[in-house]
Formats: sequence, structure tokens, C-alpha cells
Amino acid sequence: MKKAATPSHTAKDSHYAKLRRAHRDARAAGGTDPAARRRKGAPDPDRQLLFYGLHTVRAALDNPHRTIRKMWVTKNALNRLQIADPDALPFDVEVTAPQAIDRLLPQDAVHQGALIDAAPLPLRPIDMLKDSDLVLMLDQVTDPHNVGAIMRSAVAFRAGAVITTLRNSPPESGVLAKSASGALELIPYIQVTNLADAIETLNRLGFVTIGLDSDGPQRLEETLTGARIALVLGAEGKGLRQKTRASVKALARLDMPGRIKSLNVSNASAISLYAARNFLAG
Amino acid sequence: MKKAATPSHTAKDSHYAKLRRAHRDARAAGGTDPAARRRKGAPDPDRQLLFYGLHTVRAALDNPHRTIRKMWVTKNALNRLQIADPDALPFDVEVTAPQAIDRLLPQDAVHQGALIDAAPLPLRPIDMLKDSDLVLMLDQVTDPHNVGAIMRSAVAFRAGAVITTLRNSPPESGVLAKSASGALELIPYIQVTNLADAIETLNRLGFVTIGLDSDGPQRLEETLTGARIALVLGAEGKGLRQKTRASVKALARLDMPGRIKSLNVSNASAISLYAARNFLAG
Repeated sequence: MKKAATPSHTAKDSHYAKLRRAHRDARAAGGTDPAARRRKGAPDPDRQLLFYGLHTVRAALDNPHRTIRKMWVTKNALNRLQIADPDALPFDVEVTAPQAIDRLLPQDAVHQGALIDAAPLPLRPIDMLKDSDLVLMLDQVTDPHNVGAIMRSAVAFRAGAVITTLRNSPPESGVLAKSASGALELIPYIQVTNLADAIETLNRLGFVTIGLDSDGPQRLEETLTGARIALVLGAEGKGLRQKTRASVKALARLDMPGRIKSLNVSNASAISLYAARNFLAG
Repeated sequence: MKKAATPSHTAKDSHYAKLRRAHRDARAAGGTDPAARRRKGAPDPDRQLLFYGLHTVRAALDNPHRTIRKMWVTKNALNRLQIADPDALPFDVEVTAPQAIDRLLPQDAVHQGALIDAAPLPLRPIDMLKDSDLVLMLDQVTDPHNVGAIMRSAVAFRAGAVITTLRNSPPESGVLAKSASGALELIPYIQVTNLADAIETLNRLGFVTIGLDSDGPQRLEETLTGARIALVLGAEGKGLRQKTRASVKALARLDMPGRIKSLNVSNASAISLYAARNFLAG
């Protein structure tokens, strides 16, 4: 492996080692952030997010609310990101070899020569949604790949936010950002301590809150009314919690005439967002 | 690691080693089966499929068309599969420890104590579709996780088959079966050498063939006509090939008003199947 030719080689290596360790620890924690939990939802601005991949890094660069602390990038990736003058960027940029970036990330991370150390976005209050007409809420969906794919669909169908629970939902992370394919920078990801309270708030704001449930008494299409819709989906298998079911205005099902009666949560979210957006547009 | 206490311990180990090697080779081949390709699509009945996980194994047991050669299963999994008398099964059943099953599979395979060695299903001709009203075709979608999730949606919305290309599509495999969550046993997975020819056949059978394309001139809803629909989706990024585009009756888009203009292929398939099934039912 080629070593980075920098004067402070030893210091760099220990910095790399620290980064790797932090990343490994975050993975080992199974996708939850104890610091964030302890402080009831305020993201720790010092927490390090390692975002990688051209699309994800480009989206972060384009987000004026995203603080970036450092970038590691190959010459080739600089070109593909269309960064003509890295020195003009308001953070430290280290032009380096792909192998040096490999060493900062888990083995399976497809970084395409671009990596940034970013700060979490500040916590956003739920009343920022007063101008949205469509919101997606997730009741303890834990898999960051699913949540990322759902954020992408939510942006595609112009939802105003994705709201999750602070506990048992993935925090901002490299895997979430990568799965969201840039969407993490385009839609507020609001994490709340109590989902039932958030549903009540949306009820008061005039949203028709609809919980998706395979045993729902009505078809989703029948429950779509009003000018503002909030869709609530639960994790596969577990579904919506009792308190969630009690808080929504309607429980709706997606009709599936075939021999499998459930979809994965990412597909169910996509269909629900599509149906709701069609209704609101129509 | 605890060793299996069998008299033929050495022979078993070499058998395990052979299984592991076969599985590794299949993975290394990147999801295509050269034997199947050489023989223009006839699946090799001797090819070994390792299906694992309670749901996947249960579905295979319930499929009268699936030949099973051997089962490795824990006592606990036997209970959960509700198999009272394993000796009554028409194939060899080895009740064993979870660790013994671990050794037969890649590290990340969640087998839940159940593994079978199954034969590929026989090739099915496209004219078996003459009684279906909904079909999904995939134009070189390579990722078995995506194709598996799509098969699950196809079963949920009662499609008659999922049709893929023999080249650049995943063959039957443990990963496909697991991602399909049992759906692989419930819907014909038809692999054709020439997708454009298959589309022409469906055109002749009276299907309205619709290719999904982000630049499609019509909205999907506008193209849904007739009593039989075939949806054709391409891989993310690449989309439909030219020959595919030329063969379908209509090119349709899913309207996405947000700042991301594409969905992943599994989500796009789910939405299209939902819209088509709604149209056919309505």
C-alpha cells in the first residue's frame, strides 16, 4: 500500500486510526447514538459523520446548512465533483490516493474517491412543517438502508419531512446518507422523542394523519382526504405501536390480492407517497 | 467451535468443504450461471441451490415443483417449521447444531437453523402466461436483492410472472430466495434469451406492454388500458435498452414533483404494480 507523502505522517496515521475507531464504534453501536439519546435529541455538533461517494458528497457540498470540517478526495474525484479550486472551499481539503481513503472507511464502503467529515444537522422542530402538504412518519424503522431509500422516495414525491423516533431509528450516518442517495441533504430528517405527540401536533396543524396497517378497516385510497396528509408506517413484522395506532385519524391498508400480504417498508412507503401525492395533485 | 459428533466426521467435513466451495464459486461468478448460459437457458438440474432462513425454507417445502435433495436443520428450527416427523420427508434430513450450518454458508447468511440443498426449477415457457393479466419484466436488473424484493411485490399484486434476461440478471440463488421472502416459490421466474422477442410475444398475446422511462411522453396512468398489462423496468441509471424501448407499446413515466427524479427500481416496480393492479381491478 502506498503511504501518503506528508511531513506529519505519524500524526496523520494516528488521526486515521482515530477516525477508523470512531467509525467502528458507531457501527458497533448498531446505528444508535447514545450521546444524542442522552441529551433528548439534541445532535452533538462534535459528532463526526463520515459521508462518502460522489453523489452523497456533492449533495452535502450543495446543502448550505451542512457544516463540513474536512474533505479527503482523489484528483479524479475532484474533477468528477467539478471542483476547480479546492483551496477556495471553506474547509481543509486533502488531495490523496484512493487507498488512503480506503483506510478511513469500512471495507465495503464504495467511496469513489470522495469522503467528508461533516457535522450533524441541527435538530429541527416539528412546527417547521406548517407549509408542507405531505409528511412521512416512521414508527421505529431501524434499518438505515430502508430509511435512506424511503428518504429518497419522500424527496421524489415532495414530502416536507421524514419524521422518526429518536430511539430505535437510525441517526444520521454514512450508511443512511449513502442509501438516501443525496436525499438526506434535501429533506428535513426530524427525530422526535414521542411519535404519538408528534402525530397529535400534526393533527392540530390540520394534517390528516393516516397509519398504514395490513388490518386497516379502509383502503388507503378511501382515507385520502383534505389538503394535508401525514403517512405513518411501522417496521416490517412489528407494524405500528398501539399508541401510534390510537393517535392517527385513520388506519388504512394497501390492498394486495396476491398470496403475499405485506411489502417491505420501503416499497410500502413509496406506494403510499405516490398515492398521496397523486391525490393532493388531482 | 463445536464439532459435529458423527461417525463419518471426516467425510462430512470434506462434503461441507465442497458445499462451501461451490457456494463461494457461485458468488465469485457474480450471480450468473455459465452452465445455464451455455445451454441457452435450460437450468442445470444438478446445480446446487442453498436456500436458508425459516421463511424461505418453508416456502420451498410448500412448493410442489421444488426438488429438495437434503436439509440441515436445528431442533429448534424443526419446531418453528412445524415439522413433527422429519423422517417422513422425502429427502435426507440432518438434525444438527447451528454452528454446523454456519460452516456451510457465507458469514452474513442469516439461516435461523434451516438450510436446504434444492434443485433449480425447470425453465418455464412464456406462453404459460396466457391466463395472466399482469406481468413484470426486468431489463438487465442485476442486483439479486432488488430482484428478490420485486418478486415479493409482484406476488403481492398478483402478477403472473417476473420475466428477466438470462444474461445480466441474477439466477436462482440463496440471496435471491432470501430477498424474495418466499416469493421465489410463488411466482414463475422466467429467464429469456431475448427480451425484445418476449415483449413481442406478449404483444401478440394481447398484453399492453408499457416501458417505464423517466423521459416517457405519457404518465403511467394515461398508458394503462386494456385487460392485460406487462410492465417493463430497467436498471437504475441505465434504464431500458434501445431494443426494449422500440418493442413496447408505450413508454411511460412516473411523475415525481420533487428534487429527485428517480426511484430505485424496487420502489418503481412496486408503484407500477400497484397502479396497474388498481387499474385492472377498477
